[in-house]
Amino acid sequence: MHGSNTSTAVWNRRHLLGLRDLSAAELETIFSRARTYKERALRGEPKSNELAGVVVANLFFENSTRTRTSFGLAARRLSADVVDFSASSSSLSKGETFIDTALTIQAMGASQMVVRHSSSGAPKFLSRHLDCSVLNAGDGTHEHPTQGLLDIFTILERRGQVRGLTVALVGDILHSRVARSNIWGLKTLGARVIVCGPATLIPPAISELGVDILHDFDEVLEEADCVNLLRVQFERQRGAFFPSIAEYAHLYGMNRQRLQRARKDLLVLAPGPINRGVEITADVADGEHSLILDQVTNGLYIRMACLALLHEAQRSGQAVS
Amino acid sequence: MHGSNTSTAVWNRRHLLGLRDLSAAELETIFSRARTYKERALRGEPKSNELAGVVVANLFFENSTRTRTSFGLAARRLSADVVDFSASSSSLSKGETFIDTALTIQAMGASQMVVRHSSSGAPKFLSRHLDCSVLNAGDGTHEHPTQGLLDIFTILERRGQVRGLTVALVGDILHSRVARSNIWGLKTLGARVIVCGPATLIPPAISELGVDILHDFDEVLEEADCVNLLRVQFERQRGAFFPSIAEYAHLYGMNRQRLQRARKDLLVLAPGPINRGVEITADVADGEHSLILDQVTNGLYIRMACLALLHEAQRSGQAVS
Amino acid sequence: MHGSNTSTAVWNRRHLLGLRDLSAAELETIFSRARTYKERALRGEPKSNELAGVVVANLFFENSTRTRTSFGLAARRLSADVVDFSASSSSLSKGETFIDTALTIQAMGASQMVVRHSSSGAPKFLSRHLDCSVLNAGDGTHEHPTQGLLDIFTILERRGQVRGLTVALVGDILHSRVARSNIWGLKTLGARVIVCGPATLIPPAISELGVDILHDFDEVLEEADCVNLLRVQFERQRGAFFPSIAEYAHLYGMNRQRLQRARKDLLVLAPGPINRGVEITADVADGEHSLILDQVTNGLYIRMACLALLHEAQRSGQAVS
Repeated sequence: MHGSNTSTAVWNRRHLLGLRDLSAAELETIFSRARTYKERALRGEPKSNELAGVVVANLFFENSTRTRTSFGLAARRLSADVVDFSASSSSLSKGETFIDTALTIQAMGASQMVVRHSSSGAPKFLSRHLDCSVLNAGDGTHEHPTQGLLDIFTILERRGQVRGLTVALVGDILHSRVARSNIWGLKTLGARVIVCGPATLIPPAISELGVDILHDFDEVLEEADCVNLLRVQFERQRGAFFPSIAEYAHLYGMNRQRLQRARKDLLVLAPGPINRGVEITADVADGEHSLILDQVTNGLYIRMACLALLHEAQRSGQAVS
Repeated sequence: MHGSNTSTAVWNRRHLLGLRDLSAAELETIFSRARTYKERALRGEPKSNELAGVVVANLFFENSTRTRTSFGLAARRLSADVVDFSASSSSLSKGETFIDTALTIQAMGASQMVVRHSSSGAPKFLSRHLDCSVLNAGDGTHEHPTQGLLDIFTILERRGQVRGLTVALVGDILHSRVARSNIWGLKTLGARVIVCGPATLIPPAISELGVDILHDFDEVLEEADCVNLLRVQFERQRGAFFPSIAEYAHLYGMNRQRLQRARKDLLVLAPGPINRGVEITADVADGEHSLILDQVTNGLYIRMACLALLHEAQRSGQAVS
Repeated sequence: MHGSNTSTAVWNRRHLLGLRDLSAAELETIFSRARTYKERALRGEPKSNELAGVVVANLFFENSTRTRTSFGLAARRLSADVVDFSASSSSLSKGETFIDTALTIQAMGASQMVVRHSSSGAPKFLSRHLDCSVLNAGDGTHEHPTQGLLDIFTILERRGQVRGLTVALVGDILHSRVARSNIWGLKTLGARVIVCGPATLIPPAISELGVDILHDFDEVLEEADCVNLLRVQFERQRGAFFPSIAEYAHLYGMNRQRLQRARKDLLVLAPGPINRGVEITADVADGEHSLILDQVTNGLYIRMACLALLHEAQRSGQAVS
């Protein structure tokens, strides 16, 4: 289906809350649109007027310059006006509730709200109370759908399809919304997914999502077409059973020796920000297998696609949720 | 006069410092322009080029995301470029004076300066030293003219005129610039204004502005066409005679029981951010009497109107102040 | 050469790292372009589409609202999209390296990066690793080229040329990147440069740059056509030999008495933010000799010129560095 002229008629969602909800056709619709925007940019036409007059609000209750900036640039490439709110700057500090903050921003004219929140489900909660479109930019340990989309899109660019590929997610699966979004999307599109990391960071129940659990990274590398190196937030970890940074790097860090054991065309992804010398060594991060900067670039086009598709569904009056 | 084609020729002010200065005709000019912008937006034409090439500077020495964002969006709807300054980020921390900061921003090309400051009179002070237009976005306990304008505009939308209406301002009148701007504007347009709240929060001298002082909210509700529930900043209050939050909610909070005692078409306003359960209960805030979100929406159009009118006066070369 | 139709063909640099590198012809190319933008603005045409679709990133690892805002407004006048990054907000706090932060921003589509950093050489380091253009917005004690350019441009506006003029840089020469950029540019254009200040703040080796060192400000004033009063960061100074603020103001502060001793047409510059009563008294800062606000205004046009010239060189494919 990759590359075909997938019609966008398949898209009638008003919100983007997670990849769990999306069909293969919906995923392909997003990828197709992102591809269109990327091709236009490469032809020297980075901007369009599709969202002229539209206000996109970034409502970030957790700090994230990268994701916020990527959404902001995506919105501005479509000629939207962008407003940024953060927990610290907002009226939340004056006793206002989360929903009142969002309703106020909507009343100021925002028709798309990009939401990051430390609580899983916060974007869904908002989507029930707002008329505007809600885009989940990461909620608790639940989902980070645009990160999942850009990861998969980056693999698709190199392989044409993900069906039949073996993709390994390595690191902190327990706390990772990025892992969850990748799993839902990759499984829907027919990939085999392995999750790999210290036992303390892999919830056994995750096997119910149809993924394989392996703890030996070297064993994983023999099978993987792609590894996605998730960031481990050591500052969040407490307890005797969790490895030190050095132990983690030794057991699960991607390095030159491990590369030699892997497929010659192994794809190496990392959502970033990366910790050089921890989950990945500098030479691999900067080497030919690494797609880290492609991911960043593709994030822009994925977010443009999501903003545009939600906008079109909202304007068509036929959005279903 | 509401709805008639009020000419804007009546407007020849370069600054908007407070509603005390404005005639009924000037107030109507602002409302008429705001109505025009709102109608255009509802027709799907939210943006215009009226301030293309103009730089609007937000100079906020007190934190206020809501007001700053509203002014910023208003300016961008008119195609202005917006720059944000705050006390913490500015060179004030390097020893620069208030006026030097403003002169520097003007020298960078700003022709409109939106100023919030904890000192009453700061915007007027600036207006004497700058060539650009100064819009008061709240100064100390003095005035917050665009908030007063949007409150009155919201009442006008529902009642057609304010002449003959009884409007009650409830809460902390002593420290409230919002109360003062409402009083000046409402009195100029012929409303009866009641101020209501704990005796410690009502300065007796306020009766000189031609308002009635009442301390019993239930008594007020028998007469009021509209109540405007001002935020009480409990964190600023000290002293034995000030009520607790619970006492305040009991005596002056708007709730379902009080609604039943009021006129059937009572209008309930609150400048926000609201504290649910204090000055207003959740059911009233979300109920049919509440105009809280209309106020937010109208704030955008009021601020567009003010920016555009000041710009036109400045460019005409006939501004009087 | 001032005012002649200097061709921009002379400009083929991709980065602006310092004035040390620039020839007189290159300096004139920048001034000529800045003059063009200023004239257009005075004719009521402040904006152009030259950088439409271009993303300019402000990457500030040291705080500077003035310079950041000036670059941001300059970029927007050319219709670029601007994104702001600061050390505190960036992923640096999550362990990301400086270069990874910059590569990420570039991968998001930025083609011009305005960099301020406390380490001398940081912009040059970035320029070697990035495809995008790097503009040094101040690095350690090394250079602050756009400040030097706007200072010289402001002198040129009044005198037509700097060849033959005597320009005195007064204050903290030791730590001043502004001093260094002024020295390189002024010497290249044929001015005589005097550096003046307390012995503790003047590195003896600076005479190797072809400047004269004088410690008596009153003596300097007898010869100078122009004095540029550098800010002394007293908070950075430690040690018994450094003067107090009062001593500094007495020995090196520009005041009315000193003005009377100087040439009648003395030009007084100060990069700001100024400390009234320290390096300059209020009456001189606000008086007819002062060009302080002209400098701010010219900074906008100088930065527009630099952004546009780097962009053109980058697009021409003939940039040499």
